Amino acid sequence: MCSDRIRLASLHSKITSAEQAAALVKDGMVVGMSGFGGGGDAKVIPRAMAERARQGNLKITLITGASLGSGLDGIMSDAGLLARRMPFQGDPVLRKAINEGKVLFIDQHLSQVVEQIRSGALPSPDIAVIEAAAITEQGHIVPTASVGNSATLALLAKQIIVELNLSSSPHLEGLHDIYIPEKRPGRTPIPLTKPCDRIGTAAIEVDPAKIAAIVLCESPESAATILPPDEETQVIANHLIRFFEQEVEQGRLPHNLGPLQVGVGSIANAVMSGLLHAPFTDLVQYSEVLQDSTFELMDAGKLKFASGCSITLSADCGKRVFPALEHYKDRLVLRPQEISNHPEIARRLGVLAINTALECDIYGNVNSTHVCGTKMMNGIGGSGDFARNALLTVFVTKSIAKGGAISSVVPMVSHVDHTEHDVHILVTEQGLADLRGLAPRERARVIIDNCVHPDYRPALNAYFEEACTRGGQTPHLLERAFDWYSNLEQHGHMLKP
Amino acid sequence: MCSDRIRLASLHSKITSAEQAAALVKDGMVVGMSGFGGGGDAKVIPRAMAERARQGNLKITLITGASLGSGLDGIMSDAGLLARRMPFQGDPVLRKAINEGKVLFIDQHLSQVVEQIRSGALPSPDIAVIEAAAITEQGHIVPTASVGNSATLALLAKQIIVELNLSSSPHLEGLHDIYIPEKRPGRTPIPLTKPCDRIGTAAIEVDPAKIAAIVLCESPESAATILPPDEETQVIANHLIRFFEQEVEQGRLPHNLGPLQVGVGSIANAVMSGLLHAPFTDLVQYSEVLQDSTFELMDAGKLKFASGCSITLSADCGKRVFPALEHYKDRLVLRPQEISNHPEIARRLGVLAINTALECDIYGNVNSTHVCGTKMMNGIGGSGDFARNALLTVFVTKSIAKGGAISSVVPMVSHVDHTEHDVHILVTEQGLADLRGLAPRERARVIIDNCVHPDYRPALNAYFEEACTRGGQTPHLLERAFDWYSNLEQHGHMLKP
Repeated sequence: MCSDRIRLASLHSKITSAEQAAALVKDGMVVGMSGFGGGGDAKVIPRAMAERARQGNLKITLITGASLGSGLDGIMSDAGLLARRMPFQGDPVLRKAINEGKVLFIDQHLSQVVEQIRSGALPSPDIAVIEAAAITEQGHIVPTASVGNSATLALLAKQIIVELNLSSSPHLEGLHDIYIPEKRPGRTPIPLTKPCDRIGTAAIEVDPAKIAAIVLCESPESAATILPPDEETQVIANHLIRFFEQEVEQGRLPHNLGPLQVGVGSIANAVMSGLLHAPFTDLVQYSEVLQDSTFELMDAGKLKFASGCSITLSADCGKRVFPALEHYKDRLVLRPQEISNHPEIARRLGVLAINTALECDIYGNVNSTHVCGTKMMNGIGGSGDFARNALLTVFVTKSIAKGGAISSVVPMVSHVDHTEHDVHILVTEQGLADLRGLAPRERARVIIDNCVHPDYRPALNAYFEEACTRGGQTPHLLERAFDWYSNLEQHGHMLKP
Repeated sequence: MCSDRIRLASLHSKITSAEQAAALVKDGMVVGMSGFGGGGDAKVIPRAMAERARQGNLKITLITGASLGSGLDGIMSDAGLLARRMPFQGDPVLRKAINEGKVLFIDQHLSQVVEQIRSGALPSPDIAVIEAAAITEQGHIVPTASVGNSATLALLAKQIIVELNLSSSPHLEGLHDIYIPEKRPGRTPIPLTKPCDRIGTAAIEVDPAKIAAIVLCESPESAATILPPDEETQVIANHLIRFFEQEVEQGRLPHNLGPLQVGVGSIANAVMSGLLHAPFTDLVQYSEVLQDSTFELMDAGKLKFASGCSITLSADCGKRVFPALEHYKDRLVLRPQEISNHPEIARRLGVLAINTALECDIYGNVNSTHVCGTKMMNGIGGSGDFARNALLTVFVTKSIAKGGAISSVVPMVSHVDHTEHDVHILVTEQGLADLRGLAPRERARVIIDNCVHPDYRPALNAYFEEACTRGGQTPHLLERAFDWYSNLEQHGHMLKP
């Protein structure tokens, strides 16, 4: 039945049910799973594991690439399966459990997860659960719509469960480029010098004897929900594209803007869509998640190559792209997230990084993760990998949220994910602040003048001016730095009524 | 007279006085200068420039490697010469001017300075002032006790002033390894795979036609003030060395601990001295500043190779080492700070990074720069380059300061330089907190139990426990997070009397 999908005959005997495969997972185990941003998740085995947890004592540490799609994180959390979860998530049910302290969440730079497992800083997986499009003649695993951390998780795990997705495109084979950095000491440079370089193998070269179970399924890929650009995101994209035009004109950016990294989310998506009508051609992407916009730009002849570690598409776009994968394949590569996000490569290539801020402050520090300083939203993801090492680092956000009750620019961010050192450009629908080469007091002036909503500008000006009277490299009124959060809690608005 | 020091005869006509050389510097210029941590500074020309500023209108932007020695930053600041200063300083007079807003200070990751000049994010130098030990037959510049940013500053400047230090050791020639990463796009990997690799040239290959003036001097190298270990720093070193022993035993660190990066300062110095009596051999350094401890460990047969970008020694150690440089030369290399601190190399080599924190918080965020959140101490320096990319990242600090009026562990740091993601190990004289793989609530428990001074432990416990009742991934009481700084200001003690 599936001899083209499992080409090592001796593995046919490993085919089993999701329930029996899930029974291999024991209480207290560390489980590695494929999946990044909703692409390439195992789909039936996590559900079977959740079911087992509901019936008895089963708690695990779960390590994935990044977030899982289809509500899987919520299903597993709800079943009480998850004791510890890393390195990223984006599920409302799991988020609630994390913020209630019921699931311990270790939020991490996505490029560093497997490096930390290798160094012993994080536990090594007992079992890896990997969605596959095929198993080769050698027993090697061909991933589906993401690589994420799947390769190293599978290589380090004692046992592997493969979830073979019969509905995945057979053209996924050959799309991936699996490269694992060598052991330290003695590691040599990662030999990647262009986004389109292929430096590894097409499949994950595991020892087939470790494959303990194969579960067949026919699950469709999770569909991403991407909001279309609204008026504000469109204006943000316009500010940014005008700025890029100037930078190219002045020779500070190459004509094709350099390798683009664009984060997940509606603003980033609007920026990418904005490039459809911008005067830049021969674009290339060196990014994490490839979204709808990648394929729109390819179809328009604007984007000539895209490197990522995951493909996550809306239902409509997925219906169009996955069956036509053969047509895009020579312009695409999926890599391990360690390589897609590697500091060595981001700096070498001179990536242009565009990511979304939850909030920023008048000095350019960015909070990407914690609502009001305490509640986790999703996680830092790859934003730090890119922001620190890019040629140009941009953060975008709308200037206000909740109908104006919240200003996204505050006196001092309630949690810092990216320090002032790593933020070159801030953009809101109000305008763009170019912070390069500026001292903190200059940055404050430029941010307040350009990025802040008019309703909040007088209050931020007053804070900054009073703070300056006290002196310092980075003037603040520490005793009032967080007043806006107290106001929000007490009065439902960051400014007192 | 100095034909062995200036070996390109046509340059002899460029010899001039410091005053005449300084007259090449015009108001508003961007000046690049050699110097890193007090090693390799030009000494007479900066004084002549300061003198000119005292006599008339002369304000410049000054870019160096890092801090200058011999009070030079103070002299230039005092003379009103400095309008803008980057990327690091450590001078009390300049510090005061910065915190009064009189000098605009751009605090930067030291690996990124010249990359940002190349990309146009920072201004390119009009003039470079470089201390040299010699000028070669080709007119290339041999630096003295540091490379810092000297190579790229000299290569990018329109004009170069060389300060030829006749008292510098002729054996400095051959010590340096000048490698400049290629242009982007098209940059290839930096071909360094071991701390002892030599990948560049022995001198800075400038066009000799750009050398506009050569000033001869006989200035001794600045002497560093390094405090000997006291009881607390000794205990910190002991905690850390015991931890390293366990890590080696469990196979998580190599027998020689891997390439060591150790920051400047008395605690870091105590740790290095502690290695004299520890059971580790074949140590290697891949660091920024090589201090007294480097040579003590070499003399003891413990350290077999040291790579840095600067040598900064106490007066006594300098008197011993510089005249004997020939003896150490095959075990030493000085590189541009872009390479000594490069993320690509730190990650590839698996550096063990030990740096000093000004303060940290219960979740492991570290403030390296801002006293009470506003006043600049020195700058972030290279700590972020290493902390983000090391195999193991350690921050050390005494648990209290000012006789107990200040706790170095606070509810929330008043300024973030290194986020929780980049901090693996925290050590005070109270003990060591291993934060690897822990969620924030677990980190708080481990830090409070192990690192906090007993006088502050109950207050931090109370803060943390009350914060937990409000929930969140990273529980806080925002409205009271900075109370300890207000207490300190009002009552002279972080805890209310």
